[in-house]
Amino acid sequence: MFSFAVDVLAGRARAGRLLTPHGAVDTPAFMPVGTAGAVKAVTPRDLHEVGAQIVLANTYHLMLRPGDELVAELGGLHGFTGWRGPWLTDSGGYQVMSLAKLRTLDEEGVTFRSHLDGTEYVLTPERSMQVQMNLGADIVMAFDECPMLPAPRDVVAAAAARTTRWAERSRRAHTRRDQWLFGIVQGGVDAELRERSARELVAQDFPGYAVGGLAVGEAKPDTMRVVAQMDRLLPEDRPRYLMGVGTPADLVEAVARGIDLFDCVLPTRNARNGQLFTRHGRLSIRNARYRRDPRPPDPGCSCPTCTTASRAYLRHLHLAGEMTAATLMTVHNLFFYLDTLRNMRQSIVLGRFEEFRGEMLRALSAAADGVDS
Amino acid sequence: MFSFAVDVLAGRARAGRLLTPHGAVDTPAFMPVGTAGAVKAVTPRDLHEVGAQIVLANTYHLMLRPGDELVAELGGLHGFTGWRGPWLTDSGGYQVMSLAKLRTLDEEGVTFRSHLDGTEYVLTPERSMQVQMNLGADIVMAFDECPMLPAPRDVVAAAAARTTRWAERSRRAHTRRDQWLFGIVQGGVDAELRERSARELVAQDFPGYAVGGLAVGEAKPDTMRVVAQMDRLLPEDRPRYLMGVGTPADLVEAVARGIDLFDCVLPTRNARNGQLFTRHGRLSIRNARYRRDPRPPDPGCSCPTCTTASRAYLRHLHLAGEMTAATLMTVHNLFFYLDTLRNMRQSIVLGRFEEFRGEMLRALSAAADGVDS
Repeated sequence: MFSFAVDVLAGRARAGRLLTPHGAVDTPAFMPVGTAGAVKAVTPRDLHEVGAQIVLANTYHLMLRPGDELVAELGGLHGFTGWRGPWLTDSGGYQVMSLAKLRTLDEEGVTFRSHLDGTEYVLTPERSMQVQMNLGADIVMAFDECPMLPAPRDVVAAAAARTTRWAERSRRAHTRRDQWLFGIVQGGVDAELRERSARELVAQDFPGYAVGGLAVGEAKPDTMRVVAQMDRLLPEDRPRYLMGVGTPADLVEAVARGIDLFDCVLPTRNARNGQLFTRHGRLSIRNARYRRDPRPPDPGCSCPTCTTASRAYLRHLHLAGEMTAATLMTVHNLFFYLDTLRNMRQSIVLGRFEEFRGEMLRALSAAADGVDS
Repeated sequence: MFSFAVDVLAGRARAGRLLTPHGAVDTPAFMPVGTAGAVKAVTPRDLHEVGAQIVLANTYHLMLRPGDELVAELGGLHGFTGWRGPWLTDSGGYQVMSLAKLRTLDEEGVTFRSHLDGTEYVLTPERSMQVQMNLGADIVMAFDECPMLPAPRDVVAAAAARTTRWAERSRRAHTRRDQWLFGIVQGGVDAELRERSARELVAQDFPGYAVGGLAVGEAKPDTMRVVAQMDRLLPEDRPRYLMGVGTPADLVEAVARGIDLFDCVLPTRNARNGQLFTRHGRLSIRNARYRRDPRPPDPGCSCPTCTTASRAYLRHLHLAGEMTAATLMTVHNLFFYLDTLRNMRQSIVLGRFEEFRGEMLRALSAAADGVDS
């Protein structure tokens, strides 16, 4: 049902293959975010077309609406949504802290009021596992405590220690054999706390490990320092998932430091806001310079959008408030991310990852203040 | 470049074939409305997937934004939008009356202020032809005067007479040989005025004729009475286009009265509002009865949405405000309309149109106050 193997190494970068009950995932892989059971502005058919392999859904949103039992009744995420490839759900641990109103946090769990309608809920490791078992994703996450940064060291330390205890409770409560449960390492940007958290999680022998608690307000050099540290501490034969990251540059830097899986709202959210990713940096389609521009978003891109739509057309539709713009730009940004990772994986397989990394970063910085070629 | 032929007759219903520089259209055909150069919430690829043959764009909207010259510069509608099949543009005559602010109408044309930003524009037959030549659709419409109904007979008569004079000016100003210019018959619901308008337009020898000025507030029986009258007065060897109509029942009733082409915002607009068309009538997806309904919108439908999404899922996404819902429901409604017309055409070819008409209307009325099966 499940397996993971690293096929090729290039330095610390890994080309791997993850098998799940709903299909294989070549790593490193990027997971589009399908918060409420859909990736915004695109359909499962679009996801297939851009080469998505695995999609993330948010436990917090789905337990509130439409409810995890309803999703279970309608076939789990696979049957309910029509994306029948692999799914991963987060545990709700991060979003209950960032989105819910009136939260109280204690050793038992988090009591909160829904941001939708104020209904009171309790989310504990046991309840999170129950929700995720109902949602039926292939990979589920341990319920963790993720503090926003910056935070005092004692807060970060306490959260990391609680995350370890909650990981153990998650493991005991999680009983579906057709789901893999990953543990999440916390500890902020403190090397000692990170080491302790990693060792404690590894001792619990999860089939995969996430680096949580980053991209939450810390400085970028700290992010990559922690990822490099995790690379040395997490088992090499298990997938490493860097949660909530990142830009294209972040992706290659994290792959260079041993990461296999990513999720981030950046490509999708930015698309809806008219910001397109290209190999030479980002462009904001509203800019008047694109009004008559007949070129596709990225002239080097072979996605469905770049082969049919000009910057001028996308700009027109975006300014006109047309949903079609959001779809076309989301398709491009997702393809850009996914194709970047496909190419990155190939460079690892061919033994030229460092060249790829250098070329990619040089191309990105060639137009650091907005793209134009 | 262009031709039209009626292949099979069934009573007054016609199965025909229209050839344009950008492809063939089997009639009767329904044109999805791509107001500002995109059909809302779907992409050209979706349009191909549901079997759209020809798409309508609105001159009024496009001349205001992004401007007809810009569209021309970027390849006309075909190149600009990525829909490279046939396009039809309306003349702006209807929408300048229904949408613009501070309009003054005289024999020359219409002076108005844009609903977007208040800029003053003038739309005359000559300007409308210039805009439509820039937009580059395959079929363009004469610039007409379309009064809202009800209106006093003298207003309707004056508008019809002016429409005849403006049709002549449109013909003289229209110089692109790779576009067919259709004339539009007016006259409200008055039989005498309609007859006069039809004879005057037919005398100008257009390659196709539209019945304008209906579905603008008149009683439904009057609509079909006028269509039947037009059937007797318009040439049989030229396409007849009923503008702005209608419901599925309207379509079959109009085909029974000799109509070949339709456009209407109903399937697309209603989709975005959560109303789905099925062979047993419409359903409103917000309704609590669909909360756990595992069935597709129409269990008899083979569209991409019905083969992958349940009512429960669409309801969830719609209530969550997800764009994906608008896309999935628009795909279904468009497929429903287009497939209904494909089946209707086939029934004409097979000599069983009246049976088809009867079955279709019976199925629709079987659940007149909301569908449920």
